[in-house]
Amino acid sequence: MANSSSGDSVVDRVVRILEAFPEGVSALPLGEVAARADLPLTSAHRLVAQLAEHRLLEQAPGGKLQLGLRLWELVNRNSPILLLRQAALPFMDDIHQVLNQNVNLAVLQVDDVLFVERLSRRGSVANRAKVAGRMPVHISSAGVALMAGQPRSVQNAYLERFRDPTGRVDADHVRRLLATAAERGYAELAGVVDPDTWGIAVPIEDRQRRTVAAIGVVVPIAEVRIHQIVPALRTAARGIGRQLATPGT
Amino acid sequence: MANSSSGDSVVDRVVRILEAFPEGVSALPLGEVAARADLPLTSAHRLVAQLAEHRLLEQAPGGKLQLGLRLWELVNRNSPILLLRQAALPFMDDIHQVLNQNVNLAVLQVDDVLFVERLSRRGSVANRAKVAGRMPVHISSAGVALMAGQPRSVQNAYLERFRDPTGRVDADHVRRLLATAAERGYAELAGVVDPDTWGIAVPIEDRQRRTVAAIGVVVPIAEVRIHQIVPALRTAARGIGRQLATPGT
Repeated sequence: MANSSSGDSVVDRVVRILEAFPEGVSALPLGEVAARADLPLTSAHRLVAQLAEHRLLEQAPGGKLQLGLRLWELVNRNSPILLLRQAALPFMDDIHQVLNQNVNLAVLQVDDVLFVERLSRRGSVANRAKVAGRMPVHISSAGVALMAGQPRSVQNAYLERFRDPTGRVDADHVRRLLATAAERGYAELAGVVDPDTWGIAVPIEDRQRRTVAAIGVVVPIAEVRIHQIVPALRTAARGIGRQLATPGT
Repeated sequence: MANSSSGDSVVDRVVRILEAFPEGVSALPLGEVAARADLPLTSAHRLVAQLAEHRLLEQAPGGKLQLGLRLWELVNRNSPILLLRQAALPFMDDIHQVLNQNVNLAVLQVDDVLFVERLSRRGSVANRAKVAGRMPVHISSAGVALMAGQPRSVQNAYLERFRDPTGRVDADHVRRLLATAAERGYAELAGVVDPDTWGIAVPIEDRQRRTVAAIGVVVPIAEVRIHQIVPALRTAARGIGRQLATPGT
């Protein structure tokens, strides 16, 4: 149905249009949307007009295109992430106030960790974990905490695919990171993303004891007090887990 | 292109599938998605499969469908709402800590106010302003603050369309609400949504002095100290306005 001569469907092309906006760039001219989506201008123009009719895309000041408020509304009112976020925010706020540091909430997205919420203080240390940003599992304490809680089959498949583009770490190193995190019940990574910070994260388990998310902090290396931070994070993680509704309902 | 016999396009049908998930219901069986999207089951099945291939939809535990993590990621990493939210969150947190009450961030969506962020305390008063939830402009202090800051032509068009389904208020009443809010620089509404709460909101202006959002609090009626709340909100609104990047860039 509705396949173009190149064999892609309308859905494929719509997805490419939504994906055309790179992280941190909220508005693009139509020509650039078409180029990034690998679509002829006429075809991009027609699809953009249809999406704009439903307010999934809209015109930014200056005539550029941006994702529409209606799309944001549809996705955020119904996403399972909303339930996780709502369960987690009060506990994240507690951690934020008790430890006075950046707090992150993350989920696993294949081989990456996807940050779904973040509380940061002005003046707090740099924290590269943006909302809706990703990092490879092995360089993020949240990623390691999440992967360490997955079934053995998921971990093995991940480790088999594992390639570090920098060539500095291998799968055996990551396997040991995961084993240590599983044994301790928390993950810590010093100076991987930023030399002056330390990431510490613990898993969040749902009522079926599946690891569904991770909560973590990023603290200046000089202020790491692991014996204070880990119990606070664990307490928050247990509270969030209790709040999570049974999935699938 | 790709129009069905009923004259709707693939884009129309994809939008109806995304809209099929009602607020607060994150997972639905395929049959219900098809029925709510007004699509034959075979057609819904094919489109859902295409969307699932791109992870815009995914299977929840139990076989139901839910919006996919990838869709959440695409929308939240690029939406203009993200910039507003990032600019506002530290200031919302300040208000939250100083006043110890629910804090909301809202934008105008035609005749409704759309809440894009919320910080609430456990144990705080009921606050119906959900994230990604809407309320009619005239019953929300944020809505009144936002509409009062729009150009006269936008206000007039809104007032011409205005109909209160309950029949309790008319356009003249709303016009006075807007005029009072514009004069005072803040909006307050007592007991409209919830008889025990009071909503107070101020407009947020961007660098071009356009009213682009509103920040507000919802407080128990017994605790309303308007002379403390309004200056705190105004200070936060000015701070957020300064943080906002020039639109269209």
